[in-house]
Amino acid sequence: MKITDIIEKKKQGGILTDEEIKFFIDGVMNGSIEDYQTSALLMAIYFKGMNIDETTSLTKYMVNSGEILDLSDISNDIIDKHSTGGVGDKITLIFLPLIAACGLYSAKLSGRGLGHTGGTIDKLESIPGFRTDLSVSEFKAKVKEHGTAIAAQTLSLAPADGKLYALRDVTSTVDIIPLIASSVVSKKTASGASHIILDVKYGSGAFLKTPEEAEILSKTMVEAGKRLNRNICAVISSMNQPLGRAVGNSVEIIETIEFLKGNMEPDLKEITYTLIMAAFEKIGKIYSKEECYKYLDDLIFSGKALDKFKEILQSQNGDISIIDDYSKLPQAGIKYEVKSDTDGFVKNVDALKIAKACKNLGAGREKKSDKIDYSAGIYLTKKYSEEIKKGDTIAIMYTNKQEALKEAEQLIKSAFEYSKEKPSSKSLIYKIIH
Amino acid sequence: MKITDIIEKKKQGGILTDEEIKFFIDGVMNGSIEDYQTSALLMAIYFKGMNIDETTSLTKYMVNSGEILDLSDISNDIIDKHSTGGVGDKITLIFLPLIAACGLYSAKLSGRGLGHTGGTIDKLESIPGFRTDLSVSEFKAKVKEHGTAIAAQTLSLAPADGKLYALRDVTSTVDIIPLIASSVVSKKTASGASHIILDVKYGSGAFLKTPEEAEILSKTMVEAGKRLNRNICAVISSMNQPLGRAVGNSVEIIETIEFLKGNMEPDLKEITYTLIMAAFEKIGKIYSKEECYKYLDDLIFSGKALDKFKEILQSQNGDISIIDDYSKLPQAGIKYEVKSDTDGFVKNVDALKIAKACKNLGAGREKKSDKIDYSAGIYLTKKYSEEIKKGDTIAIMYTNKQEALKEAEQLIKSAFEYSKEKPSSKSLIYKIIH
Repeated sequence: MKITDIIEKKKQGGILTDEEIKFFIDGVMNGSIEDYQTSALLMAIYFKGMNIDETTSLTKYMVNSGEILDLSDISNDIIDKHSTGGVGDKITLIFLPLIAACGLYSAKLSGRGLGHTGGTIDKLESIPGFRTDLSVSEFKAKVKEHGTAIAAQTLSLAPADGKLYALRDVTSTVDIIPLIASSVVSKKTASGASHIILDVKYGSGAFLKTPEEAEILSKTMVEAGKRLNRNICAVISSMNQPLGRAVGNSVEIIETIEFLKGNMEPDLKEITYTLIMAAFEKIGKIYSKEECYKYLDDLIFSGKALDKFKEILQSQNGDISIIDDYSKLPQAGIKYEVKSDTDGFVKNVDALKIAKACKNLGAGREKKSDKIDYSAGIYLTKKYSEEIKKGDTIAIMYTNKQEALKEAEQLIKSAFEYSKEKPSSKSLIYKIIH
Repeated sequence: MKITDIIEKKKQGGILTDEEIKFFIDGVMNGSIEDYQTSALLMAIYFKGMNIDETTSLTKYMVNSGEILDLSDISNDIIDKHSTGGVGDKITLIFLPLIAACGLYSAKLSGRGLGHTGGTIDKLESIPGFRTDLSVSEFKAKVKEHGTAIAAQTLSLAPADGKLYALRDVTSTVDIIPLIASSVVSKKTASGASHIILDVKYGSGAFLKTPEEAEILSKTMVEAGKRLNRNICAVISSMNQPLGRAVGNSVEIIETIEFLKGNMEPDLKEITYTLIMAAFEKIGKIYSKEECYKYLDDLIFSGKALDKFKEILQSQNGDISIIDDYSKLPQAGIKYEVKSDTDGFVKNVDALKIAKACKNLGAGREKKSDKIDYSAGIYLTKKYSEEIKKGDTIAIMYTNKQEALKEAEQLIKSAFEYSKEKPSSKSLIYKIIH
């Protein structure tokens, strides 16, 4: 078998066999296939696609390229939730204690964020003392004891995916649905979950811009996951506006705690509850929406979900006093209020612009080696459908970068769109793919 | 400017600007663009193409990436003839002495062949003593004195093309018309010719399979050449059957000498004379076809063309005694006659199959480091439209590889197609693009 023949076949629109895909991934791993050959094949895949058989084969060999975490001694029902990424997306931080408070198991390995704001691990690391560098045995022990744990992915899970991703990033071949699908599903499969709940976003703040693209990706991931014997589904939702009101790192921790205290932003609640309902369904617990909402509301208002959050913090060395004293979280030197120039109702708050402003303030990183300012962020005092008078504060910026304020303020102002009439409320959920 | 943006632009079908193409070629040369980025861009170009502006820019910057030979002190009319490659293609060996016998100048730098049979340089090196490793000053002096010289391309002409070609070869991105065009035109432009006559082949023995593809390539090369101030044209001809009767290295030298002695195979004559007529037109000598044929026939039958060939041999240290004694050329240990299994008229002799048989016998190379057996080759005793009786010799194989005979014989037999009626004669020339 020759890689040039495989490239040529895909270039001509051919369907690669399982053996050819194995040969490719083996070659990527053992170095017998050169990066320039891999990138040529990836570009041919951009133009000619991969069908579900090819995508499943690719996913399977990426899983097999590294370690596979075995959590079956904890439970046969291990839930993993994965988001394709959004702005203000602190859902994992709410999802995990809630799921654990339900008596279910969830084991979360997460990557560090590359983008406008930090990833879940970065957000957690803004909590003094919080450890994410758990060993495999620590991680498993904590999941067993507390129902959940979250750790930075340091294991060599699906390393072939890591190699391909590094190359895609520098060759303009990131936006290829079958490659995105196999990347996500291979990592989730290798991380030992039996039930995978995918939180797929589309819109200005997501990398997929339309619901149609999100649906194609979701169907591909769900089908590949099923073929690899995972119980999997995808919840597709809109990410045109930030989730919740806080965007950044420590500000999102505060919003998470507020949620668990019962101060639930409706959009956060809708997404989180829908994902948990999907998880219930996957493990065979069928509730009506009303039953589910009531059950989860009870866990919130009884304080059980917050107790579980505290338990997680304690288990992973985090300072639990932050729960009642937010001043123990990293504090920004500058707090700056952005005022509205106009009257009206908020018709839209562009997620991408808010994310860019947030990055300017110091909350994100461009390279893996960049340092994040955990205290930097934005809090939206006004959101969709809320009324605004000229001069009202629409957002608060937190930063230590005086020089970034002006541009960030402009970005935030331009993110807000107004209408004369109050816009009607709308659901964020587009579809659920089983 | 970022190479990932340029890749993305081409991926989306955008037209690259002159500056972007300069940035790309500069990056290829100085190493700031990685091979894996180049190969991704090349694959995107395969799918999205390049227009003539882009192709011209690419050609220009490839020319400028290395040395440019200046032959203007010899003449303002320096003719170069380039073939896209065929089977039994010894046209250059006939073209050069004829052009020089006309009193015109032709300076030929040629690459070594990678393929079923050797290239022009390999064929010449089958002549004892013949030197192709001329220095620039030697090369120029010989062109000035004898009207022509031929040397292996050792100068760093259009090195960017060399780098791109090496990458295309291992990433299945060879067959891209604008890249083929800029590769040919950049090398010819850098080699100092003012008049470029392209011999573009299509058919089973050529890399382009259809006349339509050959026409697209020809038009692209001619247009790019014109924009770079070269007087250029392309003669498109069929390469479904081998040119002449000899395929190999020393056997082709013999056929060349026979041609110059007046034993002209009609197909060789048609192509050679058409190319020379095109060259005449480029330098402003307009003859009718009859006048041109008579003029060239006179040069052949008067012995002037053969004298010029002898002069070239002498000038480049070749053994001139081979002209009258072919036994001084490398001799194969085995001479094997292939017999026909059937009666009929030859309807076709598949060039690709003959070429493959020839390679099996030892006449070609796969890797640059492979050694060629100069004595190996095939002589077709029967060609198009000739009558055959069962048991007649249709071809003679020359080789030193006993073990290769059987498969080569089968290939040769399967290359012959027969018809009951004598096929009518036909012209090989498809079109001339000015």
